[in-house]
Amino acid sequence: MTNRQRNSSGEDTLIARYFRPLATDPGAFDLTDDAAILKAHADDIVVTTDAIVEGVHFLFDDPPDTIARKALRVNLSDLAAKGAIPAGFVLTLALRAADDAWLKPFARGLGEDAGLFGCPLLGGDTVSTPGPLMISITAFGRVPPGKMTHRSGAKPGDRVVVTGTIGDAALGLDILKGGAAAAALAADAAAKEMLVGRYRVPQPRNALAEAVRDHSHAAMDVSDGLAGDLAKLCDASGVSAVIDIGSIPLSAGAATLLARGAVGIEAIVSGGDDYEILCAIPEDRLEAFAQAAKSAGVPVSSIGTVMAGPSVPRFLDAQGREIALQRLSYSHF
Amino acid sequence: MTNRQRNSSGEDTLIARYFRPLATDPGAFDLTDDAAILKAHADDIVVTTDAIVEGVHFLFDDPPDTIARKALRVNLSDLAAKGAIPAGFVLTLALRAADDAWLKPFARGLGEDAGLFGCPLLGGDTVSTPGPLMISITAFGRVPPGKMTHRSGAKPGDRVVVTGTIGDAALGLDILKGGAAAAALAADAAAKEMLVGRYRVPQPRNALAEAVRDHSHAAMDVSDGLAGDLAKLCDASGVSAVIDIGSIPLSAGAATLLARGAVGIEAIVSGGDDYEILCAIPEDRLEAFAQAAKSAGVPVSSIGTVMAGPSVPRFLDAQGREIALQRLSYSHF
Repeated sequence: MTNRQRNSSGEDTLIARYFRPLATDPGAFDLTDDAAILKAHADDIVVTTDAIVEGVHFLFDDPPDTIARKALRVNLSDLAAKGAIPAGFVLTLALRAADDAWLKPFARGLGEDAGLFGCPLLGGDTVSTPGPLMISITAFGRVPPGKMTHRSGAKPGDRVVVTGTIGDAALGLDILKGGAAAAALAADAAAKEMLVGRYRVPQPRNALAEAVRDHSHAAMDVSDGLAGDLAKLCDASGVSAVIDIGSIPLSAGAATLLARGAVGIEAIVSGGDDYEILCAIPEDRLEAFAQAAKSAGVPVSSIGTVMAGPSVPRFLDAQGREIALQRLSYSHF
Repeated sequence: MTNRQRNSSGEDTLIARYFRPLATDPGAFDLTDDAAILKAHADDIVVTTDAIVEGVHFLFDDPPDTIARKALRVNLSDLAAKGAIPAGFVLTLALRAADDAWLKPFARGLGEDAGLFGCPLLGGDTVSTPGPLMISITAFGRVPPGKMTHRSGAKPGDRVVVTGTIGDAALGLDILKGGAAAAALAADAAAKEMLVGRYRVPQPRNALAEAVRDHSHAAMDVSDGLAGDLAKLCDASGVSAVIDIGSIPLSAGAATLLARGAVGIEAIVSGGDDYEILCAIPEDRLEAFAQAAKSAGVPVSSIGTVMAGPSVPRFLDAQGREIALQRLSYSHF
């Protein structure tokens, strides 16, 4: 074996040490080949790709295991919203240096989530960069042929439904940056921790994927802000919507911040990083969807109604007055 | 339509303007959904991912269209070496700014190559970064079930075969950086241009994919240097190899630089970015493989023989003496 060590570059060592244990699928060939295989299969393969960048989607001093989990989970969230069952992922990791103290917890977090969500590592590329860390993941899921849930398809009269709670992650980021939310919750460590946790580690709703596929006319995950993503879903479907602001599900922390006036509703509905599912459910499937969600242990809330016409969705307060939103969502450019 | 403009973030505009025209596959849904579909199919899907980073794989002032071509072609090269027919790709683009003057030629180059190689854009993610530009592509190809060509499988007695010429790209990079190759070819603009072109725009050997699949015991693309990549192929196959240095195919420019002593053989065999195919062909298939290569218009050269045993491949000069290589290949870490 001594001679063989000359074959091992730093990358190979890094891959063997940290990532081979995650490559549990036979199609990954133990990461010893140049490509992976997704086996021939009667199902369609759903492909989604999302990258996270240091300083943009996570912070330099975020724990490495939460960075890994977020990188995978933002992709798992897309699969869930498309009604797909996870099948695996490939990873591109751009690093400044091969730092064991960072890579070890990163790979551990990634491996735990790969196991938890049944989404094994299939392959990847590790490159050096002088710039910020970046993690790009392309994830694969399976759906019966032609059954992927689309953004388009919402129809007037459908209920607008979201999972979980909205706005927490944006408030968590505000806390990490020492913003207004941090000051307003100075005495409430538990609430701050919950909100920061929602920013760092999204909870993708993969348990709901089949229910989304079975019952919704249209769905997407909320990643750039509820208002902007709802506008995208409506745009793709050629419809509009009316949202009852009071029905938007809030965590206790977010509700407290809103009640204290530390943040406005705009921060809640246009903040990014929720990674909840937004879907349009026809009235006659609502009960079945709610039952399936209950069985899956995923809270769902009906927040409004799909309307005819091409206008931007309207957000109404308790008095039925429309709230004017200056900003619908996060944009990179 | 006026109202709808409020839905368009900078990203959406950028995607619609530059990348939607490239999304010609029905499974891309015109890039208006959150995921793409690879249709259910009797073939296995080969998945490969490779990223290129500014300052590492390309230079800041490289033409944007060549950067795009290189990003796609390094992945197409992997598909070719695995015997796969291109099916499509997803793109992650990390940009400092949405600069039309850069994006327009980038998208044009990408679209031309997507058409040329029959590999349409299926989806992607565009993110902002304060750091260097990075382009990560995950590409998909199809092979009959179980027929992907592996790194492993080379057998003692097989001929070691490479396509094209070796070492050009590393010399091209040396020229761009004003190294010894630039000085030695100061009077030969055409040779310099050819070598720089080989660095900027690889020529992936997709025309040879089926021949590789039909005739080779093992194959991979040469991306990190012939010596290192051959060592990897031998390692995966549990064999060694002897290479006749005089048989390694060289371009006129590389041969001139070697003859003038401006570079040594090590720079040729351990330089990266060749994107040629390296394969192990059994003796009795060599003629058929050569014929197939001729039909495909791809030059191939037999450069050595696979040997039994686990030792690192040996490179012999005209006198049969082994050349000691200090460095086998490029490593990021």
